[in-house]
Order: sequence, then structure tokens, then C-alpha cells
Amino acid sequence: MPENKPNMLVVGSVARDTLHLPTGSHEYVLGGSAVFASLAGAFFSAPRMVGVVGTDFPDGEVALLKTRGVDVTGLEVVEGETFHWEGRYSDDLSSRNSIRTELNVFADFHPKIPEAFRDTPFVMLGNIHPDLQIEVLDQMREPKLVIADTMNFWIEGTPDRLKKMLERIDVLVINEEEARQLAGTHNIVQVADRLLEMGPRIAVIKRGEYGALLFEGDEVFSAPAYPVRRVLDPTGAGDSFAGGMLGFIAEQGKADHDTLRQAIIYGSSLASYCVEGVSVERLADVSREDVEQRYRAFASLARFDSR
Amino acid sequence: MPENKPNMLVVGSVARDTLHLPTGSHEYVLGGSAVFASLAGAFFSAPRMVGVVGTDFPDGEVALLKTRGVDVTGLEVVEGETFHWEGRYSDDLSSRNSIRTELNVFADFHPKIPEAFRDTPFVMLGNIHPDLQIEVLDQMREPKLVIADTMNFWIEGTPDRLKKMLERIDVLVINEEEARQLAGTHNIVQVADRLLEMGPRIAVIKRGEYGALLFEGDEVFSAPAYPVRRVLDPTGAGDSFAGGMLGFIAEQGKADHDTLRQAIIYGSSLASYCVEGVSVERLADVSREDVEQRYRAFASLARFDSR
Repeated sequence: MPENKPNMLVVGSVARDTLHLPTGSHEYVLGGSAVFASLAGAFFSAPRMVGVVGTDFPDGEVALLKTRGVDVTGLEVVEGETFHWEGRYSDDLSSRNSIRTELNVFADFHPKIPEAFRDTPFVMLGNIHPDLQIEVLDQMREPKLVIADTMNFWIEGTPDRLKKMLERIDVLVINEEEARQLAGTHNIVQVADRLLEMGPRIAVIKRGEYGALLFEGDEVFSAPAYPVRRVLDPTGAGDSFAGGMLGFIAEQGKADHDTLRQAIIYGSSLASYCVEGVSVERLADVSREDVEQRYRAFASLARFDSR
Repeated sequence: MPENKPNMLVVGSVARDTLHLPTGSHEYVLGGSAVFASLAGAFFSAPRMVGVVGTDFPDGEVALLKTRGVDVTGLEVVEGETFHWEGRYSDDLSSRNSIRTELNVFADFHPKIPEAFRDTPFVMLGNIHPDLQIEVLDQMREPKLVIADTMNFWIEGTPDRLKKMLERIDVLVINEEEARQLAGTHNIVQVADRLLEMGPRIAVIKRGEYGALLFEGDEVFSAPAYPVRRVLDPTGAGDSFAGGMLGFIAEQGKADHDTLRQAIIYGSSLASYCVEGVSVERLADVSREDVEQRYRAFASLARFDSR
């Protein structure tokens, strides 16, 4: 994808995952929030990925990322082993348990943004320690749009740091359950009100197989999820969503409200492809035309005549 | 609403509910599937309601139904007490427990469709024993469209009778969890496949605050839910949805696919109003123009530019 511009930066985890799925187990496959987000963003941009791996990280994975148009010059290689997560999904894939989380080289990670990357206009802060997310922002020069993800671990463990981070971003992308936890209330409209009071001017609430909600000012957008007939592996769907969303925004070079709505449908398209394969296999296989086709399928899914 | 046609028949429970809501308790308020569905349908049709009440049923409730345009000549009054349900909702209104279910006169109910009602073209079979739903169909003369609801109680208790009923209807309207139970699988696309194999040519899966899915042939429609800022009482939302949906179909006099999509948005509009008040208070208060306004709000909620 040589025509894509290097206008998007992704910082997050780069992992090797061991997945126990109802359809079988997969050892040490490619994973991590930065990987899924970059591969999804690569349909629209040439993402600059910043993260850390150990010396065990296979050359083949690096080659795959490059082939898909991801700039890996910000991928630090440190003596030791790559972050390894092992998890088991329930038979219906609706829940999962962590079996092992071996941080390895990720334990001492501090993102170093290469000088050449510091002017990147569109920035995604994957789900890592809020202090690291802040460290990234401290190194960036006036990005046009910053989106960030977070999770219950930081909401419970480092709420004050999380709040500092929230004051400095434009878009919070967060799972519904975690949004409720962070807001301390249940009703989703009230949840959005409180999230927006915390700093970001846009909140995107991910609802898995129920789609996503976008809140910006008085505008609310409800995006459907694509009804995937055979879900193989939900790992990375949320990161693909956010990466695809930001990628489209970066390609358009703007984040007005109508562009955001479209970006959410593109993000949902990428997430729907992501879950159709194990690890990144489907994301690394589909074409831009496949993505456009799924976008049109979303339009058909959501359409109804106005009155 | 004198201009509405008597083209819709609703059979179901007529109840007096005692509700324990986070905002307070309400004793012996109007409820039942036939009541909510008829009041919702009455925005588009003059619904013919068939059900049974005891001699304790207040004249005021009958008067309310009439005022809203519901034809109550099919409402049987039997010596004894009206069906009474008492339930308690969780603090976030996401679940409820039944405290008491007193069937009373409903225990011996067999729907008698008045001769003048037997040609009604659009029929809703509320959530009652499948044998009673079949009894209704045995009395009707070639309805144009029959929609039915059901629940876990019949899926577990009378599966064979339920299957007989399903062979005779056009549209199954069912909660997502119960759809999964009935289909015996989790993936919602596969669930829909199996429901349609059981007889109905259209399946509508209700997902509460996540909206609804419509499956007809190869067409899938994902309808959003309206983000209600203050939900007071979820009781009757599903019945209002189905009644509003059928009402619109009856008004249009057709059930082609595009009309079905619109009908689902109208049903969702009625459901969203229903939960804004306790019992039927909001449904009995809003106007057709309010319903149109909410329809337009749905359009704004779901819109995104095509590519």
C-alpha cells in the first residue's frame, strides 16, 4: 500500500499470544494492541508503530507488518522475551480468562518516539499504563487528534493517572462495561456525559457484537455490528476497531462529525474481519476493496427509509 | 384517533402489575402484553384487543384503553380477580425477579375471537401458552400477517406445542436470550437460520438497550435502540415494540421488506417511550407527532454517509 501517508502513530503492546479457542489452541501467535491497530490502520495510512519486543520476536512477524505497510522503525528490540499473554475463551467466545500474563521486556517499556515521528498528526494511544500514554503525548508536537483506549486494570489501579491522561486526549475509545465502571453509573447516556466531563470531547463506546456508540456534543451515533456468521477469535477486535477508525480519519485528514461516523463504520468493518480469523490472519489477508465491500454491507444493514 | 382502521388484532395478557422500581413501588398498575401492544398499535390502527380480566378490573383502565382508540369488545370479564404480577427490578433496571404471579381468571383463559374480528388482517399473538396462540389462529380467517412472541417458560415447558405454533406464523418476535435458547446455539446469524427453519419467514430478535435485528431471507436489518436518558420502568417495552411494529404494518397494509424495516423503527420508538414512564403512563400520553419525532431521531442516530 505505497500510496498511504505516514500520518498515524500507534503506541501500544506488541505481544505473542497463546490462545485457547473452542476451535483449537494456537501458541505464540502475533498479538498486542499496537499490532492489531497498526494492521487495521494500514488500510488507510502507513502507520508508525511504536512498541517493544524481545530478541525472540520472529523476523517473519516483522516482515508481515512491513509488507502490510506498517513502519516498524519505532519498534524497539530489547534483550529478553516478548510480552506473552495466554488466555482461554468460553465455548461461545463471549468471555475469556487470562491464564498467564508474562510482561517480559514490556515491564520496563518507556515509549521512545523517534524524532521523525513527533509531528505525526493522528495518534493512537493503545491500552497501556496511563503514565506511558502521557509520556507519548509529552514527546509529540501538537497532534491534530489523539485517541486513547484504557481498561479496568487502570481504572481500578491508577485512577488518578488515568484522569490526567483523559484531560489530554480528544477521543476516548472504551468498552461499555469499563465505561460504566469509569463513569460510576449505568445509564449509557449519563455514562457518556461523565466521560466527556473528564476531558475528551468525543467518547466512543465499544459494545462488541452490539456495535458502538459515538457521543460528541449533542450528537449520538449508533453503529451496528456486522453479524459475523463464524467468529473464530475475538482477540484484537477492539484494537482493530480503533486502529481502523483512526486510519480512516488520518486518510481524510479531518475529524468532523460526519467523518467520525464513517470512521466508526470503517473501524467496525476491520473489527468484523479481525474476528473471522485467528490472531491477525484475516486482517493481514483482506484488501482495501474487501473493506469497502464490508462498509457497503454496513450501509445495507443499517438503512431504513426516512419519513 | 378516529381515522385509524380496525385492521389489527391483539391477543395476550391483561394484567395488574405491582412493580418495585429503584424509584419507588407501584401497586396494581395496568400491565399485560395485550395492553402494551394495543396501546402501541393504537398510534396506527384501532386495535381489537382480546383478553380476560376479573370483576376487580377498574373501569378507569377500560376507559383509558377506549380513549386511546383500542376496541375492548373482545375483553372478557369473568367473576374473580385479574391476573396479577409482582416483580422487583435491579437498581440498574437490567434484570428483574418475579415475586408473585397470580394467574387468577387468566388461568382458565381461552381466547374467544368475536365473529366480527375473525377477518382482521394483522394479528399479534402475545406471549401466552402456545396452545392458546394456536386456538386464536384456528378462529381466524386467512390473516395477512401473524406475528407472535414467546418466552423461556414455553421453550422449556411446552416445546412441542411451541413448534406447532411456529409453523403457523409469519413473524417470530423474540428476546435474544430466548432466541438462543430456542435455537440451541449462540451465534446470532446461526440462531436466525434455525428460527426461520422452524416456520416463520421473518425473525425479529429483540436486544433491549441494544436494539433489534430483523432477518428475512438474505436480508438483515440492525436497528439501534434509542438512548433513553432516564429509564423509569422497562415493563412492557417488548410488547410495545411488537405492537407498534404491527400497527405500522397494519396502517401501511403491507409487509414488504422496506416496510418491515420502518415498522421496526416505529416499534423501537414506542418501546423507547414506554420505558420513560411507569406502566402505561407515557404510552398513553404521547402523540403521533411525538412518535414521528422519535422516528426522525432514530434516523439521525443511525445515519452515516455511503461511499
